[in-house]
Amino acid sequence: MPASTQQLYERFVGLLRETELLDSCSSLLGWDQETYMPERGADHRAEQLALLAGMVHAKRTDPEIKGLLGELEQSKLMADPQSAAAVNVRETRRVCDRASRVPPKLVEEIARTTSLARGHWVEARKKGDFSRFLPWLEKIVSLKQQEAEALGYGDHPYDALLDDYEPGATSAGLGKLFEPLRSALADLLQRIVNSPTQAPVEVLTRRYPVSDQEAFGRMAAQAIHFDFHGGRLDVTTHPFCTGIGPGDTRITTRYDEHDLGNSFFSILHECGHGIYDQGLDPQHYGTPLGKAVSLGIHESQSRLWENYVGRSRPFWEHFFPQAQAAFPDALSDVALDDFHRAVNDVRPSFIRTESDEVTYNLHIFLRFELERALIVGDLKPADVPGVWNETFERDFGLRPPDDRRGCLQDIHWSGGGIGYFPTYTLGNLYGAQFFARARVELGDLDAQLARGEFAPLKSWLNEKIHRQGQRWRGAELVAVVTGKPPSHEALAGYLENKYGELYGV
Amino acid sequence: MPASTQQLYERFVGLLRETELLDSCSSLLGWDQETYMPERGADHRAEQLALLAGMVHAKRTDPEIKGLLGELEQSKLMADPQSAAAVNVRETRRVCDRASRVPPKLVEEIARTTSLARGHWVEARKKGDFSRFLPWLEKIVSLKQQEAEALGYGDHPYDALLDDYEPGATSAGLGKLFEPLRSALADLLQRIVNSPTQAPVEVLTRRYPVSDQEAFGRMAAQAIHFDFHGGRLDVTTHPFCTGIGPGDTRITTRYDEHDLGNSFFSILHECGHGIYDQGLDPQHYGTPLGKAVSLGIHESQSRLWENYVGRSRPFWEHFFPQAQAAFPDALSDVALDDFHRAVNDVRPSFIRTESDEVTYNLHIFLRFELERALIVGDLKPADVPGVWNETFERDFGLRPPDDRRGCLQDIHWSGGGIGYFPTYTLGNLYGAQFFARARVELGDLDAQLARGEFAPLKSWLNEKIHRQGQRWRGAELVAVVTGKPPSHEALAGYLENKYGELYGV
Repeated sequence: MPASTQQLYERFVGLLRETELLDSCSSLLGWDQETYMPERGADHRAEQLALLAGMVHAKRTDPEIKGLLGELEQSKLMADPQSAAAVNVRETRRVCDRASRVPPKLVEEIARTTSLARGHWVEARKKGDFSRFLPWLEKIVSLKQQEAEALGYGDHPYDALLDDYEPGATSAGLGKLFEPLRSALADLLQRIVNSPTQAPVEVLTRRYPVSDQEAFGRMAAQAIHFDFHGGRLDVTTHPFCTGIGPGDTRITTRYDEHDLGNSFFSILHECGHGIYDQGLDPQHYGTPLGKAVSLGIHESQSRLWENYVGRSRPFWEHFFPQAQAAFPDALSDVALDDFHRAVNDVRPSFIRTESDEVTYNLHIFLRFELERALIVGDLKPADVPGVWNETFERDFGLRPPDDRRGCLQDIHWSGGGIGYFPTYTLGNLYGAQFFARARVELGDLDAQLARGEFAPLKSWLNEKIHRQGQRWRGAELVAVVTGKPPSHEALAGYLENKYGELYGV
Repeated sequence: MPASTQQLYERFVGLLRETELLDSCSSLLGWDQETYMPERGADHRAEQLALLAGMVHAKRTDPEIKGLLGELEQSKLMADPQSAAAVNVRETRRVCDRASRVPPKLVEEIARTTSLARGHWVEARKKGDFSRFLPWLEKIVSLKQQEAEALGYGDHPYDALLDDYEPGATSAGLGKLFEPLRSALADLLQRIVNSPTQAPVEVLTRRYPVSDQEAFGRMAAQAIHFDFHGGRLDVTTHPFCTGIGPGDTRITTRYDEHDLGNSFFSILHECGHGIYDQGLDPQHYGTPLGKAVSLGIHESQSRLWENYVGRSRPFWEHFFPQAQAAFPDALSDVALDDFHRAVNDVRPSFIRTESDEVTYNLHIFLRFELERALIVGDLKPADVPGVWNETFERDFGLRPPDDRRGCLQDIHWSGGGIGYFPTYTLGNLYGAQFFARARVELGDLDAQLARGEFAPLKSWLNEKIHRQGQRWRGAELVAVVTGKPPSHEALAGYLENKYGELYGV
């Protein structure tokens, strides 16, 4: 008796779940590598990750999966393109086709190299010594060039890599989306820099004991409904969020006794990612319907909580009294308005993750420019520090005093994440659009935030975005939820309103 | 051209390494489950572990491995039975044959069930409520009975399970080894209990701040050459050691502010395991020559550092002044002799891991007796609490007031570790023999310990035991290193001398 379509589909889902389960072991190994792994364990960890990457790749390109895809694509399950089965088949086809184009040896070599490179990046960054990282960057760029060639592309080899993080995006498309934003930001920044108004930033650099920062951050994370029964908060060099699987989502931050904003907004940011992962539908675990859409959509969730909520006046109406209670020495003589202005200070600075909402995207545009040049070979890895510093000076009017505050600041390249950065700006655009739409649909959102009521917003995001899994691609989801295609307008308008008022410009 | 024997052997070693590498991912998942996993991650973790257990099992029983074993067994590489190749083939044959007898579904079911059971055991123990754990114990006993039947056995189904932890051991053989020890211990204990001498145990229950305990324990661990660059120390309900791989060995302990001995001797104990794992030959990683011999030999290393070194007078001649500096409030008025007597207090008590050197093995004999009855079905899981308490009263003259201090105290059954306990007594026997031999070979060992010189002993253990991998089985290794087969005599003599003197009996 031939298997029914339903039986084929169930077998297909079973194979997808098994692949995801195996891949989720890598997620834990990766998390541990950043948090608790002893330093001498690095070589063994690289071998573990290479082995799992190879095994996951083999499962993704298994002839049985290809056969099932072929049969299911011809079946009546595809009638409704937004049905669970159709979505799962469509997105699995995409992943399977991409994976099939990359040789297993290359997959394993990328996993091994990037696992090892991470320790060398940490060392190089600590010492501000780019030469320690250079051989690894050269190897990684070369491997990613090979990957791009293997994957194939239309216009630009960068597109092959970008597509892994933001399915369907191209560098030409992003260029069109980013260009008007760049102009709007440059104009706004110029006016702010020339404004006589100055934010009282000194208040954020007072003494904030680390254990109190942790307690305050944890309290806020809980308040916005990050679930600590199904999650953790740890400390790492570079904050991140890892979804291990249902019931297990882990975020990290870093603490500086004289910088409250750094740890606190990192926590809110990673909570945004974590709330997305915790909001995925466990019934669809392992299939595209139970997965995040793209890095751009993921980033929209982190930026929404970090900035659109976390740097808003209503948010601090609720939390500032608690902050004063948590840090009486630092904050008892500070007014809410001054604190709010301090957390919204705008000024050109070196470190992307610590930059403000106005300059942040300029950091991304710089990386986007350099990465495209690296991948086509127009920029040699050895020339990155010089070109970084020149470009930075062109865009920000400042020259990084060292590579620690220049091209060594980000973990991404050490992890092979070339093509990743533009999704941050996409996240800012998408997030602004989602937040504007939430305002329309949720009634008086500001009043809710000021009362510390975060559940309505979180539930709205759960329903509109998290539970949708990969039913839509990123740009489609934005259009479905907000009624408009992705554009710079919501973000530019939000920044103009907010900072126009704060800086009187 | 047919492959040469050397080529076949290299392929064989490559497959073994890959299997071990995959299995080492489970080790990390297991470590994380005990240390940092959020509670809602338990179900997903069980699925991850079941998947990996199934995949490792498939690799161990792969037709290619079987074919290679068949060819290599006929080759000239086997000429010297203690050569690397011969050892690796012999011990892999053992593992492959055992694995081949167990159905994959049973392997996965055991992995899944024991991963889930652990959380229920923690809960049951916390609440002292055996009924919460009973359904899991019933399922585990049933699965282990099925496993024993699948494995096959000569004399007793328990032997099939025991053989996994102590290759070659049988319950009949252990019975013969344990019986004279039981008599000697019962006699010694009777004399101690009747002695008017009392150890000043109160000093160990004074206030020892947890962070100071941690610092002191970490300092001692470092002093005996546990390598923290390739290791960690964390906190868990039940102390343990996990070797993840070369450069990555992790130990845990637990702290009680009013019990210095509990955390400190657990750290020394787990360090003993850790030093063994750190001393394995990384060149032979993944093959039997790069693996520990057996749990009995493993335990010999932990007990050696915990008891034969750590509870000795010379050890505290070196460390007591440091302990007084670390805990001035608790120890400044205490004399070295009193402290030494306190850490060697002998008295019947409920908790195995906190018991003294004399009564410890009586705890093991009880479990050995109950486990054999469980596996043949003479004892029903539901009857365990009653039978435990009766047997405990028979052997110790005390009745556990609750199951927390009775049958719920150990993690082992929740992890499927039936057949594991007797290796603890083997470890005590083997450790006593190794330590006696080290005394002969290392010159004045007591003087070295009193000077805080632990490197000669550690190097001796590295060379004689750790670097040997599985060249010999447990009992053979004892004979090779000490010149005598395993026996109760070294342990009984050590205890008689030490406690005869301490208690004047």
